[in-house]
Amino acid sequence: MFKYPGGRAYQADKQAKPASLLETNYANRGMTLEKDLNATNEFYREHGIAVIHKKPTPIQIVHVDYPKRSAAVIKEAYFKQASTTDYNGIYRGRYIDFEAKETRNKTAFPLQNFHEHQIHHMKQILEHGGICFVILRFTSLNETYLLDAKHLLTFWHRQQTGGRKSIAKHEVEQYGHYISLGYQPPIDYIKIVEKVYFNDASV
Amino acid sequence: MFKYPGGRAYQADKQAKPASLLETNYANRGMTLEKDLNATNEFYREHGIAVIHKKPTPIQIVHVDYPKRSAAVIKEAYFKQASTTDYNGIYRGRYIDFEAKETRNKTAFPLQNFHEHQIHHMKQILEHGGICFVILRFTSLNETYLLDAKHLLTFWHRQQTGGRKSIAKHEVEQYGHYISLGYQPPIDYIKIVEKVYFNDASV
Repeated sequence: MFKYPGGRAYQADKQAKPASLLETNYANRGMTLEKDLNATNEFYREHGIAVIHKKPTPIQIVHVDYPKRSAAVIKEAYFKQASTTDYNGIYRGRYIDFEAKETRNKTAFPLQNFHEHQIHHMKQILEHGGICFVILRFTSLNETYLLDAKHLLTFWHRQQTGGRKSIAKHEVEQYGHYISLGYQPPIDYIKIVEKVYFNDASV
Repeated sequence: MFKYPGGRAYQADKQAKPASLLETNYANRGMTLEKDLNATNEFYREHGIAVIHKKPTPIQIVHVDYPKRSAAVIKEAYFKQASTTDYNGIYRGRYIDFEAKETRNKTAFPLQNFHEHQIHHMKQILEHGGICFVILRFTSLNETYLLDAKHLLTFWHRQQTGGRKSIAKHEVEQYGHYISLGYQPPIDYIKIVEKVYFNDASV
């Protein structure tokens, strides 16, 4: 499930596209959270706090033109499903890996926001000793949480064994960590990472 | 560097380049090394040895069509320059980050294979305690080396201060670590990582 097909580039791009269509279907979905995280990661890099990047959106390229005297143009390509999480990097020598998702739902976070192979990837990261979590935003409530991947895996397993297809809001509150929003950086998740993973708070 | 359909050429020259010429000169450049590394990383993941992925090629999307009842089609897009290295992940709890490049040159490895922001990225990774290196392949000689990023930074600095624009082959041999090629995995660089970074061999 692609949260923002083309949306990212569009946005950086002035070119006319049925903006209305985009807006209706995809445009703002996830964009704010992504923008905030990009700004946050840039802040972290510039201040030498952490080196974390968002991975490029995976694209399946089908056809490329090589016009004379100008750059290669991709003429046909498709969005591919990501096989990993969107963000990774390093903080205080530790490997950091996470996915960020939004929902308009006020009472629960739907698990359909995640994919089987992302879950598998997170499991692998935990097994290899990495710090792995998801950043969940309830857009309607303007609340953002960091939830360790091990809890997500538990909720995922619950779903697979016939349980509910979402994480109840109160469960996110119970197992997750609230991230207060700011201006610089917009989403200071490293503060939570520091507290949770480096100062023995309960994950 | 862009390694998808003719992408190399886009990077190397934005000038006119007939596809036939592209194929001859550039198309397979880098593909073998990339394929070998992808197979190697897959082997590592499947055997629970390490979780390392190649990042998707960054693309600037300009135009997307949303046909009814079928997947979104990217109709115009361009290759962008990567702002980080191509590969990263985790091995034994440590953050791993590297770039892989090939040359047909038999006596030296040209530094033009790297970009300023990649060098900057590698510097940051070292500063944050990550394991960072480059995998250099001399295709004509069929020799592959792992060279720690700190050495690459030294050679880069030498170039910037008026020195040679490449790393001499004997320097790669002296400061790097030869990676013997195999079948499964094709490029067992983790064996070298283990020896160099975990068993106190000289980096």
